[in-house]
Amino acid sequence: VYLERYAVRRLPFARLGERDVAFFERLLPGRALTAQEEVKPFNVDWLKSVRGCSQLVLKPQTTAEVSQVLRYCYEKNLAVNPQGGNTGLVGGSVPVFDEIILSTALMNQVISFDKVSGILVCQAGCVLERLNEYVEEQGFIMPLDLGAKGSCHIGGNVATNAGGLRLLRYGSLRGTVLGLEVVLADGSVLDCLTSLRKDNTGYDLKQLFIGSEGTLGVITAVSILCPQKPKAVNVAFLGCQSFAKVLETFTTCRAMLGEILSAYEFMDEKCMELVERHLKLSSPVADSPFYVLIETSGSNSSHDEEKLNNFLEQAMASGLVTDGTVATDDKKIKRLWSLRERITEALTHEGYVYKYDISLPVGKLYDLVDDMRARLGQSAKNVVGYGHLGDGNLHLNITAESYSHSLLDAIEPFVYEWTARCSGSISAEHGLGFKKKQFIQYSKPRGAVVLMQQFKAMLDPKGILNPYKTLPSAPEWGLC
Amino acid sequence: VYLERYAVRRLPFARLGERDVAFFERLLPGRALTAQEEVKPFNVDWLKSVRGCSQLVLKPQTTAEVSQVLRYCYEKNLAVNPQGGNTGLVGGSVPVFDEIILSTALMNQVISFDKVSGILVCQAGCVLERLNEYVEEQGFIMPLDLGAKGSCHIGGNVATNAGGLRLLRYGSLRGTVLGLEVVLADGSVLDCLTSLRKDNTGYDLKQLFIGSEGTLGVITAVSILCPQKPKAVNVAFLGCQSFAKVLETFTTCRAMLGEILSAYEFMDEKCMELVERHLKLSSPVADSPFYVLIETSGSNSSHDEEKLNNFLEQAMASGLVTDGTVATDDKKIKRLWSLRERITEALTHEGYVYKYDISLPVGKLYDLVDDMRARLGQSAKNVVGYGHLGDGNLHLNITAESYSHSLLDAIEPFVYEWTARCSGSISAEHGLGFKKKQFIQYSKPRGAVVLMQQFKAMLDPKGILNPYKTLPSAPEWGLC
Repeated sequence: VYLERYAVRRLPFARLGERDVAFFERLLPGRALTAQEEVKPFNVDWLKSVRGCSQLVLKPQTTAEVSQVLRYCYEKNLAVNPQGGNTGLVGGSVPVFDEIILSTALMNQVISFDKVSGILVCQAGCVLERLNEYVEEQGFIMPLDLGAKGSCHIGGNVATNAGGLRLLRYGSLRGTVLGLEVVLADGSVLDCLTSLRKDNTGYDLKQLFIGSEGTLGVITAVSILCPQKPKAVNVAFLGCQSFAKVLETFTTCRAMLGEILSAYEFMDEKCMELVERHLKLSSPVADSPFYVLIETSGSNSSHDEEKLNNFLEQAMASGLVTDGTVATDDKKIKRLWSLRERITEALTHEGYVYKYDISLPVGKLYDLVDDMRARLGQSAKNVVGYGHLGDGNLHLNITAESYSHSLLDAIEPFVYEWTARCSGSISAEHGLGFKKKQFIQYSKPRGAVVLMQQFKAMLDPKGILNPYKTLPSAPEWGLC
Repeated sequence: VYLERYAVRRLPFARLGERDVAFFERLLPGRALTAQEEVKPFNVDWLKSVRGCSQLVLKPQTTAEVSQVLRYCYEKNLAVNPQGGNTGLVGGSVPVFDEIILSTALMNQVISFDKVSGILVCQAGCVLERLNEYVEEQGFIMPLDLGAKGSCHIGGNVATNAGGLRLLRYGSLRGTVLGLEVVLADGSVLDCLTSLRKDNTGYDLKQLFIGSEGTLGVITAVSILCPQKPKAVNVAFLGCQSFAKVLETFTTCRAMLGEILSAYEFMDEKCMELVERHLKLSSPVADSPFYVLIETSGSNSSHDEEKLNNFLEQAMASGLVTDGTVATDDKKIKRLWSLRERITEALTHEGYVYKYDISLPVGKLYDLVDDMRARLGQSAKNVVGYGHLGDGNLHLNITAESYSHSLLDAIEPFVYEWTARCSGSISAEHGLGFKKKQFIQYSKPRGAVVLMQQFKAMLDPKGILNPYKTLPSAPEWGLC
């Protein structure tokens, strides 16, 4: 449906031939998949909202293999879709037409871990949750965490500049990623895989690849700084009677919890209803219009509990919060987190999901949900809001029995115009991928987009890397 | 001396003519300086180690004026040296030949400050210390702090990706800078001045300008995330009997102080001797081979003091530390910090200073100082080491009565080869500027440097912006 809607046409790349397949089978014996059944799952995204028709999946194990694959594709003008855990939400991780899928699934080796500095170096295909387990054994944690952790690859996380649940405390990947190894479109290997906290020798090239969604190069290895594992973690799950109270609770807890605050998430009552109904989870607090999840991470459990209790007492006494529960043991902490983390999954049970991932000034965050609900009325099944309030990041989701042009027309460009009026971002953390790339102008001025296209043309002159993604197609924009 | 040593030749830019001067005097009435006395201080760096011979200093007040200046220079092929507070240590902030100096001194307005989010938007010429005072009044602090704070401009800080004293806690500018406005070489204005914590719409262009030392564009405005002002700050100043104990003290305090640790600095006994001699400061602890400064910042003074006291007890009991003092009041905290912050200043009293700013694996940090001291023997007056140990960042300084080729030959490339063998960085935070640019290959592979040169050629095709800086000159490298 997207192809039609945005009138996307296949660019004049070469078609995959028998000789090409033979080359790849020789290069990657047993790791060049062509059987339709094997290829199929790689063609469809996690949301089942976009589907390509690639006929070849390549599974290299080494950087040298990735380099040989790309050198060949570059010479033959074959388009390539780099794919990590395929958990992206904007159609960036699957082919649009017949692009060759380059999967990092077998590039899953840890290269090194330094216990003094906490610096991990690993291949791009390592699964985030496996890495977290690995460094946890040595007293550290990964600086990022997100709902898809069980499947997403660290290379994909970096390629999309994933945000997630720990950004409030440990900052973005732009600070924690110390080095990258990247294979460029022509197969040359760019080695920026250093493990230094500070390095001001020339331009920081790796930054350009962070968040470029596989359109400028294929990330093959990552060096990342892991924070120490906190000795004490507490989670509070609270009910609030209005969004204004959610906001006031945030400023109060930021002031009172200070350096131990590691997450401030919110969800509305509709979200709770859906996780209860579809996932059989039960709410630990009395029904409320809004719920807040607060996490603290610190080095001294009695200090942290004292801070948290002081805050909770004040929040209850002043009526900011009407009900709440606190967890200090791992099991209950996981249970509380799953209420928030599994909203995405619960939504998929409702039919088709229109997903929006918006950055806004925190005070206006929920106004967009209210306005959208009023606008759509009965034509949508659900309009829900949740997200990383501490980062000013709203996940706005709209569900309906099935996809319809008319509902989409009612949502877009309204949602983007609304966001642009508040100087927000139309994609806080999901990226633009295939589904959002035509809307970049709502968040970036024309001069910036033209410059991006110049970078793309410089680094990938034939445009073979993840085509049809991230940047708007050429006609409207003049370049390429 | 550097011109000679590195055989630097003036590139064929146009020479400044009377008509050019007349144009600038019309554009910036009273703010185009040509009198030799007025221009002179802008031609010499803070260390008095490099000197240009510019005949014109321009002081725009607005982005539009910067744009007009650059458009004119681009058309006429006139080279430009952007200059902030002129506190750089690698000769990046002054002209090499007759480049026009574009000073941000009059671009010193705060544009906005949001008390809820702590996001500051200001012009590039704001002095760091003034900004810190401004946000402190509203309960926040700047995310960076450095010895030069009284003169350095925030635009220069961003252009050089300054590190400094708070990086350990608040991370690098790559995470805290949320947006930039940049004027490109041809005078066009790139507006990436957003104030969002998360924005994944296309490539993050601003990152390329952070740390590019004015060679890719002139930063005219900055949007930056300020952390909350900590309610409690403590500083401990300690004496250690060996560098091994300095390291062990670090791992112990990182584990015990956790999230409240905001600085871990070290200096050797020679540094202490120099600040005592030249600045009449006195050491607060018994003479020791090494000194450590530890700062904590937190939201609860009794919790923080308890953590710090527990750590100090353990450090004293186990013999890691042999003497120490703690400060909780502002005045004493400032006094302790000045011992560390004013080492640079004390060194300048010793004659000529050869400065090196190295990133190394923390365990090897002081080996370089020992090796250098052994190598130079009597030919150097002092060989001292200090720096941001928590970030793996050593400041190695060598002094002599005056500059000599032979001493420099004994130091370089030895120091760079030593660093490269440990996969370190030859410039952790100072940048490459004019003095270090020929050594980039010790920290970056050739492919990366070639790519940097392509970026430079794309963004500044005539090479008018801060020429002779950051990237090695063309002949050896083939490109441009």
